[in-house]
Amino acid sequence: MNLHEECGIFGIWSPEKASLAGEVFAGLHALQHRGQEAAGIAINEDRIIRCHKDVGLVSEVFDGQTLAEMGEGNIAVGHVRYSTSGNNNRLNAQPMLVRHVKGQLALCHNGNLTNSYELRRELELSGCIFQTTSDTEVISYLITRARLIKPSIEEAVLMAASRLEGAFSLIMMSPAKLIAARDPHGVRPLSQGRCEDGSIVFASETCALFAVGAAWERDLLPGEIVVVEDGEMRSIFMNTQDKKPALCVFEYIYFARPDSVIDGLCVHEARKTAGAFLAESVPVDADIVMGVPDSGLDAALGFAQKSGIPYNPGLVKNKYVGRSFIAPDQGMRRLLVRQKLSVIESVVRGKRIVLIDDSIVRGTTSSYIVGLLRAAGASEVHMRISAPPFLHPCYYGTDVDSEGSLIAQGHTPEQIAEMIGADSVAFLTVEQAKALAGGRGVCTACFDGEYPAGTPKKAEKDRFEISGKSI
Amino acid sequence: MNLHEECGIFGIWSPEKASLAGEVFAGLHALQHRGQEAAGIAINEDRIIRCHKDVGLVSEVFDGQTLAEMGEGNIAVGHVRYSTSGNNNRLNAQPMLVRHVKGQLALCHNGNLTNSYELRRELELSGCIFQTTSDTEVISYLITRARLIKPSIEEAVLMAASRLEGAFSLIMMSPAKLIAARDPHGVRPLSQGRCEDGSIVFASETCALFAVGAAWERDLLPGEIVVVEDGEMRSIFMNTQDKKPALCVFEYIYFARPDSVIDGLCVHEARKTAGAFLAESVPVDADIVMGVPDSGLDAALGFAQKSGIPYNPGLVKNKYVGRSFIAPDQGMRRLLVRQKLSVIESVVRGKRIVLIDDSIVRGTTSSYIVGLLRAAGASEVHMRISAPPFLHPCYYGTDVDSEGSLIAQGHTPEQIAEMIGADSVAFLTVEQAKALAGGRGVCTACFDGEYPAGTPKKAEKDRFEISGKSI
Amino acid sequence: MNLHEECGIFGIWSPEKASLAGEVFAGLHALQHRGQEAAGIAINEDRIIRCHKDVGLVSEVFDGQTLAEMGEGNIAVGHVRYSTSGNNNRLNAQPMLVRHVKGQLALCHNGNLTNSYELRRELELSGCIFQTTSDTEVISYLITRARLIKPSIEEAVLMAASRLEGAFSLIMMSPAKLIAARDPHGVRPLSQGRCEDGSIVFASETCALFAVGAAWERDLLPGEIVVVEDGEMRSIFMNTQDKKPALCVFEYIYFARPDSVIDGLCVHEARKTAGAFLAESVPVDADIVMGVPDSGLDAALGFAQKSGIPYNPGLVKNKYVGRSFIAPDQGMRRLLVRQKLSVIESVVRGKRIVLIDDSIVRGTTSSYIVGLLRAAGASEVHMRISAPPFLHPCYYGTDVDSEGSLIAQGHTPEQIAEMIGADSVAFLTVEQAKALAGGRGVCTACFDGEYPAGTPKKAEKDRFEISGKSI
Amino acid sequence: MNLHEECGIFGIWSPEKASLAGEVFAGLHALQHRGQEAAGIAINEDRIIRCHKDVGLVSEVFDGQTLAEMGEGNIAVGHVRYSTSGNNNRLNAQPMLVRHVKGQLALCHNGNLTNSYELRRELELSGCIFQTTSDTEVISYLITRARLIKPSIEEAVLMAASRLEGAFSLIMMSPAKLIAARDPHGVRPLSQGRCEDGSIVFASETCALFAVGAAWERDLLPGEIVVVEDGEMRSIFMNTQDKKPALCVFEYIYFARPDSVIDGLCVHEARKTAGAFLAESVPVDADIVMGVPDSGLDAALGFAQKSGIPYNPGLVKNKYVGRSFIAPDQGMRRLLVRQKLSVIESVVRGKRIVLIDDSIVRGTTSSYIVGLLRAAGASEVHMRISAPPFLHPCYYGTDVDSEGSLIAQGHTPEQIAEMIGADSVAFLTVEQAKALAGGRGVCTACFDGEYPAGTPKKAEKDRFEISGKSI
Repeated sequence: MNLHEECGIFGIWSPEKASLAGEVFAGLHALQHRGQEAAGIAINEDRIIRCHKDVGLVSEVFDGQTLAEMGEGNIAVGHVRYSTSGNNNRLNAQPMLVRHVKGQLALCHNGNLTNSYELRRELELSGCIFQTTSDTEVISYLITRARLIKPSIEEAVLMAASRLEGAFSLIMMSPAKLIAARDPHGVRPLSQGRCEDGSIVFASETCALFAVGAAWERDLLPGEIVVVEDGEMRSIFMNTQDKKPALCVFEYIYFARPDSVIDGLCVHEARKTAGAFLAESVPVDADIVMGVPDSGLDAALGFAQKSGIPYNPGLVKNKYVGRSFIAPDQGMRRLLVRQKLSVIESVVRGKRIVLIDDSIVRGTTSSYIVGLLRAAGASEVHMRISAPPFLHPCYYGTDVDSEGSLIAQGHTPEQIAEMIGADSVAFLTVEQAKALAGGRGVCTACFDGEYPAGTPKKAEKDRFEISGKSI
Repeated sequence: MNLHEECGIFGIWSPEKASLAGEVFAGLHALQHRGQEAAGIAINEDRIIRCHKDVGLVSEVFDGQTLAEMGEGNIAVGHVRYSTSGNNNRLNAQPMLVRHVKGQLALCHNGNLTNSYELRRELELSGCIFQTTSDTEVISYLITRARLIKPSIEEAVLMAASRLEGAFSLIMMSPAKLIAARDPHGVRPLSQGRCEDGSIVFASETCALFAVGAAWERDLLPGEIVVVEDGEMRSIFMNTQDKKPALCVFEYIYFARPDSVIDGLCVHEARKTAGAFLAESVPVDADIVMGVPDSGLDAALGFAQKSGIPYNPGLVKNKYVGRSFIAPDQGMRRLLVRQKLSVIESVVRGKRIVLIDDSIVRGTTSSYIVGLLRAAGASEVHMRISAPPFLHPCYYGTDVDSEGSLIAQGHTPEQIAEMIGADSVAFLTVEQAKALAGGRGVCTACFDGEYPAGTPKKAEKDRFEISGKSI
Repeated sequence: MNLHEECGIFGIWSPEKASLAGEVFAGLHALQHRGQEAAGIAINEDRIIRCHKDVGLVSEVFDGQTLAEMGEGNIAVGHVRYSTSGNNNRLNAQPMLVRHVKGQLALCHNGNLTNSYELRRELELSGCIFQTTSDTEVISYLITRARLIKPSIEEAVLMAASRLEGAFSLIMMSPAKLIAARDPHGVRPLSQGRCEDGSIVFASETCALFAVGAAWERDLLPGEIVVVEDGEMRSIFMNTQDKKPALCVFEYIYFARPDSVIDGLCVHEARKTAGAFLAESVPVDADIVMGVPDSGLDAALGFAQKSGIPYNPGLVKNKYVGRSFIAPDQGMRRLLVRQKLSVIESVVRGKRIVLIDDSIVRGTTSSYIVGLLRAAGASEVHMRISAPPFLHPCYYGTDVDSEGSLIAQGHTPEQIAEMIGADSVAFLTVEQAKALAGGRGVCTACFDGEYPAGTPKKAEKDRFEISGKSI
Repeated sequence: MNLHEECGIFGIWSPEKASLAGEVFAGLHALQHRGQEAAGIAINEDRIIRCHKDVGLVSEVFDGQTLAEMGEGNIAVGHVRYSTSGNNNRLNAQPMLVRHVKGQLALCHNGNLTNSYELRRELELSGCIFQTTSDTEVISYLITRARLIKPSIEEAVLMAASRLEGAFSLIMMSPAKLIAARDPHGVRPLSQGRCEDGSIVFASETCALFAVGAAWERDLLPGEIVVVEDGEMRSIFMNTQDKKPALCVFEYIYFARPDSVIDGLCVHEARKTAGAFLAESVPVDADIVMGVPDSGLDAALGFAQKSGIPYNPGLVKNKYVGRSFIAPDQGMRRLLVRQKLSVIESVVRGKRIVLIDDSIVRGTTSSYIVGLLRAAGASEVHMRISAPPFLHPCYYGTDVDSEGSLIAQGHTPEQIAEMIGADSVAFLTVEQAKALAGGRGVCTACFDGEYPAGTPKKAEKDRFEISGKSI
């Protein structure tokens, strides 16, 4: 599947001055699946924050020399970004580093605001200018303006946060403080960990904590702001009245790494549960179960174990299929698509197959895979999707949208099965999606249209699309 | 594990002139796992053979423009290469394109000769000069010299082949003929396929046939030379008296792609069989079975299904770990090693684990992984290796050597278990390794020292290492 | 010599929509000598301003594809930049493109403010944040804030300009207007031209007008703001009371291209005049005259023609000496310095030489060249400098500074001659420097310390140097 | 003008082991004007010759790290190459390093053979294969085959040289010897120098000797082979009976650097002499003299000094015009051509101009420049060419050919003047071209068709062009 999460964030405070850029590099590397378009690191050497960022993978933006040149400090933050268009978006890379009247601030953001148009407009009317198209610049202005009247940066963050609507997990640093914040609904994950040397670490996912040798301590509460300064840690809280926890359920289903634990639940287990739910509610008489690599594998295992049908992976992913090769013509493109997946014929021939994937967006990929299996001799292909059908756009930091191309809009599972050539298709229910989170409050807006953190006014999206061209 | 196959080869004859470089690109891409150091393609445009090659992955050496510029022809060949040192080996990239008295020849080689020193010396004494350190240049000389006295290129290949000792699968082209040849022992695989439009394709593995839409027809026999000219195909045969089939058994265990079928046996199935053999002969009382990604996964599944112990993959591979990042210091290197694999703690904690890998070379990687599992709370870790212990160097085109650093030399499984921190270690037996090939003749020299295709004299290796510096 | 001008600017308005990025490319290419560190172009396609910029030469930042992708518009601006440190200054590249409450503004600046610290501080206190270290961001804020209360962008520019002190030539565009402005002293040059198709062009130097086929029309007056909109051109004026014209005389002596004409005087002729002045006021009995390539050649010709001593260029510059090669060690560095210039021995041997250069900064280069000439057999070397001695720092957009390393500070010409090994050294007088401008008001502050446009407070420079590290 | 020399060569022997790659780098850098397509260096570390080469400028192929990695030795050679087509010619880069029965040989060649087709054919018939299209591979075979029957490498070179026809200057190394050789006509230059530490240096031009701090000792005699071994130097000689010295006169007129001294004559002086000859034999009544930069400047000075007409350079070359920018369309290409040269209008307006260039090939450039001068107000433009008209192809290592596009073929000077828009055009005579060499025997074949070193049979050129595609 091809949905994209927009960003991973990481921050570290160390009791000693050290070349922390290497630690952030390791953390971002573990978060690379959350954004492959741009990467950046900021560090406070001698109370001056230095930042390096560019488009590309973490290992492309940074090499040993770049990391070494960033110097030593005791606080550092970093960001990986997914974005929608070419290499022009270099200016949107994060951390965003700004100088304001009280000093410097480096800011990393994961999420999406729903009132950024209104905030931007209001700020412009008071004389602000914008050099990027990202929400992060809006948040930077709100915090630094609040700082003019608030006695500390954390109180400025609290004041600014009261103006923000939508989803935001933030990690930021001033020359002397590391601050992490999670929106009142906790839409995006944010974990806290600690190393043996006393370093304190924040990251989008626990896999990044382990990447730097930190043990997980806890996840930030929805609406919590944590400040680390001189080794002291304290929390202040946003107003969360009338705001229910609503972690994006797709973090469990697709976005997060299987070895991460979000709000206490292991992603791998959640996916196995999704597969087991499918085995119970939409069973099928079949010979083998397999998943679409890589994201369908865990759910396939769950389905197999629950149903008793043998797990036998018959689809192999070519790990050398690169993102960068530009096919010169249509024939070449066809050849290349064929490269991504291949079938182990001896596994598939004559078999009735349960095929698990985590979503169907437009149906083209599913159709192609079903065709592959049939060509290799599968007698039946039953598709089971470890998520409910997408019916509504996401406004909280992923690129699920609703431009009429979502196959689930206006088609029944039977119709979809016919469209993609499968013998049957079935989805998880919204109730099951909620259930796999084990009672945690989750956002299922893309499935049921219930938006916990508001929706943008129509105008904003249009304006963004226009100004998105302008860099 | 870190063994390397040295090369994948591909060739295609088309009834119509076409931009075949794209087909070869697709075929090489499917063979990329056999060599990541260099790639090349040759094509016969207007009876002039053009060649492009360089160090790098297939998708780095070629882009859409390069492929388009190679023009159109009806025969094309290609090669991917693994080699041992930096970027200086550009001259060793293949295909090797030479002009000789009868025209041009482009040659692709997978394997390793054991008498190349003697042949090289003999050729030098008759006035040959060498610009590379590869066996391929030796073979080129032998073929073109034989062509001076033989009436056709295929008879020249036959004459040259009678001088070669060791392992060689060859795909080559003159401006008008496509020729494939496999040594008398058939050490390296070589398959033949056909597309719907009548194109004939040869490739190291069947996965490359499918990558261009060809159906598998058969594997070349040991000692067979196939010539395709004007759509006619004919075979001539080397003398195979006293030469027994001896396919490298490690093609099944590790080198080949799981979806490939070699000499009629599916690689994925062979690996599952290896796992099943282990479950039978060296069983263990445990809670879960898992494999070291990616190459241990199939055998783990076979072990699980045979033993009835649940399959539960608790190791996750970071797919963004690149080969190119140069760590600036020791601390950074440690951080990066930690990135390659991570553990799903909820799977592992408190469990007795059977861990399957396809080999133990020096023991450092195994030791690291066992440590990871223990740190995540595994109560027992039993390592099962889906191959016999390495005890002897390979002279037939892989980099298994015997410089005293092979952990299996001089250590019992119990000692190895202690060295890597496992509760137990057990290997496949040589008999089982032979058995998983289902009665096919296989080379198991690296396990038992029985070399079917001869060994080099001591001197050669030394000389190679010296001259290996000289490019 | 190694002084650097900080920037060249260019703008064009076309009666028809066209791919103007190509025109700006050509204009910037002609201005490349004014800045080699970064380049950028902005264009108004469909009233949305698009900008592309990066570090590197114009021909490195842009290729045919990039230019084509910028689309079509009827207004475009561009900038080349010199800056002092590595590749971290990407964010400082121009044009600076900002969105404000009334739309977009793309701004290009050549010069340097002397009150940017105070302005920045004031802006920060009112809630502004800064993402770069350049004066251009300060100017952007002033203009866009003024726009909140002024009815047009040009009046906002006029209001903002009243706050600026120091040197500034500006070319900027809104989606509908092209605006050029020159500070009240006219420190940096700014010319206006027109193409046959009616296009109106502004550029730092006339050579860039000719590069796009435009004829020179006039230079902007000090304090003038020109607005082009819908083909109409109108000017408004800053308050220039008590402000005398003060074009940087070093534009004539060194910075500008010899074929440019600034404020009506051809740079090549000005340089020849400087040489003639030296021939008259500090003559010398010698056999030949030569200049240090390239910047001393014109003055050498002027000296030769005035004095009657034959012009014979005996120094050859290696045009392949690249800026990028990093010497691995001291010995290598010495080898490379030797490459930059070489001597034609047959010209030099036994001769008394007049050697003309445009400046002596630290004396090391002069010392090296005098040594070269003596080694080749010159009997006497008399150095004549076509500028007065540097004694004071420049605050108006060049990197002449006064950190005690200027050789002319505290040394007489006789002492300098001894230090660099010359038989004599003589400079132009400040009066002559003024005279070569033919009565035009010029800034000679770096020679006499009389700063026409003010000087910064001490604090600013320090703060800049610190924050210069912070990107 | 756009003629190209095909190669510069360099070699050094040092009494002590040292990182000589740096010295060769400096020497090749000074020879960069002789070839910008590829560069390479070979050095004998511990009696093993190591070679690094690639397409690109010397400073692109090598950086500090590459040079350092080449290690230390006491002999090193290098090469810069000009070639005719894209980046496919990497295999043709030199030095060519081969292993033969007696060891290794690294060979650098400047020149062109006229019997390479016959030699290649003969070698192929005895079993040689060719991997490149360069003459150098032919020479390598001849030398190494001769070595089979000759007791030393130098005698093998002598034997091989007796088979070569055409032009060749060679610098080569075995692990223990440095050898330089010049063909019996001495068509291409080759100089010998010595450093203070006793190092012995050979180079195509003296400027490369000085680049490494060596003093010129002498030029090799036509037909001389010099061997350096253990600090001993000795010469042996080819048969030069009936072979007259014939240095390419275009080395003086165009190819060589002005500060080089070839066979005792300074190139700069030779060019001034050519200008003076023109002033005498084809005088013109004019106001100023100028040259087309850079190659016409010396002759222009000679013309001015002889005629008494003032020298006043009114053409400025844009030093940032790069070789690499690919113009997207016709309009862009026109803009870029305009960038290469610009006119100083104040110099030119109303003046009668003598314009000196070193050649007219097709006339397009001359026509463009005359147009530039007229557009800037020149009242008359008289073109004087410091060489005779090209009428015949060069077979000795330059790319002057005769495909009917040479403007001088079939047109009188008057017709040429009309074609390029000049008021008059005049050339040097062949006798003057010979005279400027001051009695030295020179090759003037491209002017008068008298080929001192033979011509190739027709067939060869064709075959080369075909096989030139084949890499």
